[in-house]
Amino acid sequence: MVGVGMTKFGRLEESIVELACAAALEAMGDAEALETHPDRVIVGTQNPDEFTGIGHLSTLMADQLGLVPSGATRVETGPSSGASAFEAGVALVGSGLSDLVLVIGVEKMSEVDRGRASAILAKMMSNENEIRYGGTPAALAALVARRYMHDYGLTREQLALVPVKAHRNGARNPLAHFQKEVTVERVLQSPIVADPLTLYDCCPTSDGAAAVVLASEAMMNDLISRDRAVRVLGIGHATDFHAVQHRLSLTSLSATVQASQAAFGMAGVTPDDIDVWELHDAFSILELIDMEDVGLAERGRAIEMVMSGETEVGGSSPVNTTGGLKARGHPTGATGIAQIRDIVLQLRGDAPPELQVEEAETGLTHNIGGFGNNMVVSIFRCA
Amino acid sequence: MVGVGMTKFGRLEESIVELACAAALEAMGDAEALETHPDRVIVGTQNPDEFTGIGHLSTLMADQLGLVPSGATRVETGPSSGASAFEAGVALVGSGLSDLVLVIGVEKMSEVDRGRASAILAKMMSNENEIRYGGTPAALAALVARRYMHDYGLTREQLALVPVKAHRNGARNPLAHFQKEVTVERVLQSPIVADPLTLYDCCPTSDGAAAVVLASEAMMNDLISRDRAVRVLGIGHATDFHAVQHRLSLTSLSATVQASQAAFGMAGVTPDDIDVWELHDAFSILELIDMEDVGLAERGRAIEMVMSGETEVGGSSPVNTTGGLKARGHPTGATGIAQIRDIVLQLRGDAPPELQVEEAETGLTHNIGGFGNNMVVSIFRCA
Repeated sequence: MVGVGMTKFGRLEESIVELACAAALEAMGDAEALETHPDRVIVGTQNPDEFTGIGHLSTLMADQLGLVPSGATRVETGPSSGASAFEAGVALVGSGLSDLVLVIGVEKMSEVDRGRASAILAKMMSNENEIRYGGTPAALAALVARRYMHDYGLTREQLALVPVKAHRNGARNPLAHFQKEVTVERVLQSPIVADPLTLYDCCPTSDGAAAVVLASEAMMNDLISRDRAVRVLGIGHATDFHAVQHRLSLTSLSATVQASQAAFGMAGVTPDDIDVWELHDAFSILELIDMEDVGLAERGRAIEMVMSGETEVGGSSPVNTTGGLKARGHPTGATGIAQIRDIVLQLRGDAPPELQVEEAETGLTHNIGGFGNNMVVSIFRCA
Repeated sequence: MVGVGMTKFGRLEESIVELACAAALEAMGDAEALETHPDRVIVGTQNPDEFTGIGHLSTLMADQLGLVPSGATRVETGPSSGASAFEAGVALVGSGLSDLVLVIGVEKMSEVDRGRASAILAKMMSNENEIRYGGTPAALAALVARRYMHDYGLTREQLALVPVKAHRNGARNPLAHFQKEVTVERVLQSPIVADPLTLYDCCPTSDGAAAVVLASEAMMNDLISRDRAVRVLGIGHATDFHAVQHRLSLTSLSATVQASQAAFGMAGVTPDDIDVWELHDAFSILELIDMEDVGLAERGRAIEMVMSGETEVGGSSPVNTTGGLKARGHPTGATGIAQIRDIVLQLRGDAPPELQVEEAETGLTHNIGGFGNNMVVSIFRCA
């Protein structure tokens, strides 16, 4: 990876094309590739057709960025569309079909009202088993949270520490959707979305874009100095049964286990080698489950690491240092690329000063599609 | 490529999931891989969210096919979604990220009425330059046809020979949407869609699915006998300016030129080496332009090859032997994979008897996204 870029996340005025262009141009500039055109453009986005009325977005982006005739492709796997687009880019470079790939993740969700946005997002769930019974992602997360609390004795107050940490980090990230700290009391007193989860347990819908540039070995050496490049050590991609009710467990997402084992296997490293983690915390309970599924925490004990400060920026295993989905925001298709961008900055030593993890050399990103059924895990190291 | 499958195309009762499953299972059976699970599933589809209300289709397909936890990804580039999905699968195998990839192309367009279907499809055009002025794909094709007729002296009666050939082939293809022959008179007397194009110059909207299985060299040898495998010799992918008015020519689609030159370069063959062609004839005029852009015909002279019978099944350069988009039908995301499936059958000698090209060893597919701005060209040969 030779370049990264990202817009502010939030409820923004810019169009989806303007957001995607801004992130892409920053990434190409960062890669010193503004005059070396990427030969492929991959756009990860969940549903621009319905959120914005614009279809065929990958070709439009090649046009708007002045990259015609480079081949352009859109990739979609629900909210993990960004990471899946990244994987598609890795495959293009890895196969020799491309030497320089621009991967953009983008979503513009605020052009429709919140009810319509929820209805669009709900299409990623099972119609037969979930949607027709009024299921929503938050309802499924609440079900999971209740079961986790029952099985492991997690208290509601303890769970609130997860968004408190997210907001503490987000407050120090100038691109985050939410840049304010919250207290446990504030989390507990915010409106209930799906009992036991309150508003502050749930990520927002956001607008935003992020981009990365992937280069072959030869191309990398032509572009930037080696000490600014970050290598993809491993990547894993796994699915789970579409409907939550068909799965063996409510308190573990097996696709995360499968994808992370594949990524660790390819990378030849273990969880002990990871210095900084980006885990998909669309709901507070997911950060704890993710920590256990990727091998960072023992079953049922993730909260102990949160309480002891181990997952803080200055702790031994920092998680979601830039605010996570909860505070950085969650423009769905952009999130997977934003996670990678933030890990790249950490590994380069370019994170915002208060968020920089000291001597970070190896990082991991974990992006969830659907409600926990399409995961991509990637592992990165300084080149 | 070790296996192919396809459903009937047409206005069908089956759901999008049923169609995709049927094509996929046939392809896996053809690959003798029903017990050797593909480790990746790629689904090429233009807009299932709006055509059917079902989102996140790639994960749903992994679930419904019993392929969990294999990684699953959707790829979209408008009507070339099938071929772009195929390219993504080639990249996964080529990079070593996967040993066995199932690629499905599918669209179910008949659940919405024709007006709504047209509105959904129109999102692939330029909002600023085309949609807001009432532009439609057929209107753009008519513009192109008028210019071509002006520049090269093509007559309306000559142009009608293209759908006549398509329907002649489709009548002999049991899976084609339209299985009846038409005459020049019938084409000319059918309702005008966009002058000078009539109903029979335009492909239908269809339901249907097709699938192929891609294997690494090692995996191929474990599955089927080498004489049933077909090799991907080359693949090219190129874009053009999003809006037709921004392009240098109306009578050539430069993304076809770029993509086919890339594919021929990778394959190390020339147009003279191609024994059978699948060209994207969403409108009759496009078949002529495609023939010229891929290097099969000289500029302005494609119609001579049609008139002389060279592009018939028994001719020297058979084009769209199974009916093309016009008669086989055009379930948009499925078309690119159906083209590849039909070429594979030709190269194996397994095409329908009256459509089999004798001693076909090398074939080419050409799939268009948008109105001529996202092309994928692939070249195949017996392994």
